[in-house]
Amino acid sequence: MRTVPDFPKPGISYKDITPLIEDGDALHAATDALHGATKHLEYDRILSAEARGFVFGTALAYRARKGLILARKPNKLPRETISASYDLEYGTDILEAHADSVSEGARVLVADDLLATGGTARAMCDLVESAGGTVAGVAFLIELGYLDGRSRLKPYEVVSLITYATPND
Amino acid sequence: MRTVPDFPKPGISYKDITPLIEDGDALHAATDALHGATKHLEYDRILSAEARGFVFGTALAYRARKGLILARKPNKLPRETISASYDLEYGTDILEAHADSVSEGARVLVADDLLATGGTARAMCDLVESAGGTVAGVAFLIELGYLDGRSRLKPYEVVSLITYATPND
Repeated sequence: MRTVPDFPKPGISYKDITPLIEDGDALHAATDALHGATKHLEYDRILSAEARGFVFGTALAYRARKGLILARKPNKLPRETISASYDLEYGTDILEAHADSVSEGARVLVADDLLATGGTARAMCDLVESAGGTVAGVAFLIELGYLDGRSRLKPYEVVSLITYATPND
Repeated sequence: MRTVPDFPKPGISYKDITPLIEDGDALHAATDALHGATKHLEYDRILSAEARGFVFGTALAYRARKGLILARKPNKLPRETISASYDLEYGTDILEAHADSVSEGARVLVADDLLATGGTARAMCDLVESAGGTVAGVAFLIELGYLDGRSRLKPYEVVSLITYATPND
């Protein structure tokens, strides 16, 4: 893990997880730890958002032998989709999933590498609910505690492996 | 696997692999098969391109206990990058990787879900070579044989699990 100051813009301390992903043992250990921390949640499938979210979403899906549902930017998925929007600093963004990916009553684990303000994860939870599924929990490798994204994800159970209490941790 | 006609535009038969990814047993079996077909290649790390490439790139990295290097669209990576461009139907696109991800002499397996014309994979090979690394091979889950992308990837060893000989297979 490396902190890159002023990326993507001045004042932001960016948590760069690519060194961890590039290390075979670290990727393996982080995936196993995430699996250990989430296996009590009882879920059928994992939902992750492009692009970086696909990394730990897939690793966890393989480890847990579960399927992975892809949440994508608009117009990337070929069949009928459902969508949810989330706020950015200026404007909104949209995530889509195939309409038949979440069946009525399905239990879905929402997974991402990093919890910041929680907007993306919240949109994924909204996708699950709008399709008639149940959010089994929300899992992150890293949580930026000082942004309090966790409060946007109530009432779901939120799991994270590493929490940064301040931007300079 | 599902074929979606006329996506993303008229005349294109799109191979939709999301049904496979959403099935835990199928994702697991496809990953293990890809690992079995590539383990003779002797590589240090895997290189995959966003976004869908991260799916099998990560699954294979976990299975093989190797690190994964992310090839991303411009300005997504926080530190110094190297880049390679590839042709689209109209214009060009660019992939970037962190400059320190491929060390001199490193052996890198390039992996993607689907080989079409080979432009993206070729750009990934160029990234590896420009950093002083060696392309250990290029691996795909699916190959659209009728687009002959394989010829653009000479002289590298190309591995694919499933080949479609015609668009309507």
